[in-house]
Amino acid sequence: MAKRIKIKEKDPKRTEISTLGEFGLIKHLTKKFELKNASSKLGIGDDAAVIDNKGDLTVVSTDLLIEGIHFDLVYTPLKHLGYKSVVVNLSDIYAMNAIPQQITYSIGVSNRFSVEALNELYEGIRIACDKYTVDLVGGDTTSSLKGLIISVTAVGVGDKKSIVRRNTAKVGDSICVTGDLGGAYLGLQLLEREKEIFLDDSKIQPDFEKQDFLIRRFLMPEAKQEIIDFFHAEKIIPTAMIDISDGLSSELLHICQDSGVGGNIYDVKIPIENETKQLAFKFDLDPTTCALNGGEEYELLFTIKEKDLEKIAERPDITIIGMITEKKDGIKLVGNTGNKHDITAQGWDPIKE
Amino acid sequence: MAKRIKIKEKDPKRTEISTLGEFGLIKHLTKKFELKNASSKLGIGDDAAVIDNKGDLTVVSTDLLIEGIHFDLVYTPLKHLGYKSVVVNLSDIYAMNAIPQQITYSIGVSNRFSVEALNELYEGIRIACDKYTVDLVGGDTTSSLKGLIISVTAVGVGDKKSIVRRNTAKVGDSICVTGDLGGAYLGLQLLEREKEIFLDDSKIQPDFEKQDFLIRRFLMPEAKQEIIDFFHAEKIIPTAMIDISDGLSSELLHICQDSGVGGNIYDVKIPIENETKQLAFKFDLDPTTCALNGGEEYELLFTIKEKDLEKIAERPDITIIGMITEKKDGIKLVGNTGNKHDITAQGWDPIKE
Repeated sequence: MAKRIKIKEKDPKRTEISTLGEFGLIKHLTKKFELKNASSKLGIGDDAAVIDNKGDLTVVSTDLLIEGIHFDLVYTPLKHLGYKSVVVNLSDIYAMNAIPQQITYSIGVSNRFSVEALNELYEGIRIACDKYTVDLVGGDTTSSLKGLIISVTAVGVGDKKSIVRRNTAKVGDSICVTGDLGGAYLGLQLLEREKEIFLDDSKIQPDFEKQDFLIRRFLMPEAKQEIIDFFHAEKIIPTAMIDISDGLSSELLHICQDSGVGGNIYDVKIPIENETKQLAFKFDLDPTTCALNGGEEYELLFTIKEKDLEKIAERPDITIIGMITEKKDGIKLVGNTGNKHDITAQGWDPIKE
Repeated sequence: MAKRIKIKEKDPKRTEISTLGEFGLIKHLTKKFELKNASSKLGIGDDAAVIDNKGDLTVVSTDLLIEGIHFDLVYTPLKHLGYKSVVVNLSDIYAMNAIPQQITYSIGVSNRFSVEALNELYEGIRIACDKYTVDLVGGDTTSSLKGLIISVTAVGVGDKKSIVRRNTAKVGDSICVTGDLGGAYLGLQLLEREKEIFLDDSKIQPDFEKQDFLIRRFLMPEAKQEIIDFFHAEKIIPTAMIDISDGLSSELLHICQDSGVGGNIYDVKIPIENETKQLAFKFDLDPTTCALNGGEEYELLFTIKEKDLEKIAERPDITIIGMITEKKDGIKLVGNTGNKHDITAQGWDPIKE
C-alpha cells in the first residue's frame, strides 16, 4: 500500500449565506448560467420556466438527493456532487431515448454551508450543463435544518415514434449493456475505506492506489449521450431501455417483469474492466457480483431486435450479454458450465436500508 | 376564550415503510392516481414521464419543502400538507397565466413515518390533483435521516401569446390583487399559539375560536384557477403577474423592480376580511401590516391596462389597489391622509431566517 501523507489544514474564505438572502443567493449562484437551447424560452427569475418543444414530446424526470443517504461529503467534493447530481438525472432522460434540454435545481442548505461551498456545487452543475448542452431554467433555494438536500428535475424532448419504455422487450430480442460494470461500486468501496482512515486522523491524505478510473466511475459518472446520438444517427430504436442506477440485476428485473418476459444473461459476457476485477479480488469480492449488484453506473441496459445487431457490432462500448426468453423460463444468469441461477434484486434500495 | 377539552390518546395502525421497499411503496402510494390529461402520455413507472403539448409552451415550476422550515407537523395534518404542497406549486404555473397539467412529487422520509402517515399525505395530493385536473406523472421516493422532505415540480401549458411574466408592468397600468390578504398569516399565528399550549399538554384539544376561515387560509389555500379561466374567457392578458407567496410587499417589489417602474398602492384599498381584522387586533397586530408582510396567501398580484379595467369591474374577487408609476417615484404605500411610505420587503425569506 502506498504511503499516506499528512496534509496541512486549510483556512478557506467563508461568506455566510445569510449575507446574501434568498434572492441574492439565487442571483449569485446562477449568474454564470446562459440559456443555450432554443426551446428554453424563459429561465430563472419568474414563477416558472417556459419551454417550447414545437410538437415533440416533453420528457420529465426528477431526483431527490439527501446528504447522508445519497452522498457523503467526507469524500465527495461539492463540485463533483454538482456534476454527478445533474448527470444522474439526465441519464433518466437518455434512458427514454430522448434528449435532455433543461433542468431545474433546488437546494436546501444548513448554515454549515458557506457561499464558497455553494459556488463549488454550482460550478459542477455548470460544467455538467455545458457538457450536455442543458439549460438551468429554475429551482428553489431554501434553508434546511440539517445537511444538504438536492432536488433535480430534467426536462427533455423526444420524437413521438422513438420514445423507448422499459416494458416493451420481446422474446428473441438481444440484451445489451453499454460500457463496463462494477467500477462505480469498487470506487465507492475504496472511498469508504479511506473515509474510515480519515475519520481516525483527518490530516492523513487518502491513498487511492492510483485507481483514478474507479474513483472517477463513482464520483463523476457520465450519462450515455453518445449512445443515444448513435441510436438516432443509425435509426436504431431499442425495444426497451433503462439506465443502471440500482445495479444490472435490479434493472434487468424491471425490464423483464414489466415486459412480461424472461431473460438469460451470460456471466462471461458481462463487461468488467481489469482494474475493477483486480480491486474486487483485493477486497475479497466476486467481480460478477459487483457488476450485478453494484449501482450508480448510469450505463444503459437495453434490448434490440435481431435486425439491428449488425449496426451495433462495431461499437466497443456496447456488449451483447444475453437474450430475452419466454416468461416461463425465468430471469437467469448462465454460468461458464451452462449452469443457471435465478437473478434476484440485491441492488440499492434506499427505503429498505 | 372557549373551553379546552382533554382528548383521548389514539393508537392508530402502523405499517413500517421498510415492509414495502421503494418500488412497493411507490406502487402503493400512487395506485389511486389516474391520468386525466390527454397531454399526459406516460406517468409513473419508467425513467421519466412523457408529455405531449402539441406546439404550446411548456411551463415548469418547482418547490422544495422541508419539515421544520416550511411546515410544522404539530399543527399541519399530513392530508392538508399533501394538498397545500401541490396547490402552492400549481399557483406558480397560474401566475404565468398558464394551465398546470402534470406534477412530479418526491418525498424523503425518516423511519418516524408509517405507511399510514404517507397514505394521508398522498390522499391530500390526490384530492388536489383531482380538484385542479392535474396528473401525478413521476417522482422519487427515498429515505431521509431526519424529518419529511418534499419536492414538487409542476408542468403546465401556455399559449405563446399569453404567457405573463413579472417584469413587464408599464407606467399607468392598474395594480390588482385577488381575494383578500393577511388571513393566512393570522391563521398561522393562531396555530402557533395553540402549538405552545399543545407542547405543554398534548391531551388538551386546541381552541381555534371558531376561526375556521383563517385556519383554512393557512392550512388549505387554493390556487387561483378561476381567475386564470376568467382571464382566458375574457381575453384579458395582464401586463405582469406574480403569486403572493412571500407577502404583498415583497411581490410588489418584484414586479416593480423587475419591470423598472414605480408603484403606489392605497392602504384603504387593500382587501382584508373582517375576521382577519378582528383577530389582528386581538393579537395586537396592524391588519395592513399583516396583509403587506404575511405570506403564503397564493392570491395573484397583477397589473392590467386601462382598457381591461371594465372587464374586471364586476368581479368581487378582484380589487384594484393602486397604479404603476415612473421608477423615480418609488414604490409607496399611500395612507388615508395621502401620506406616503416606502414599501420594503419584510416578507418571508427562508434563507435569512
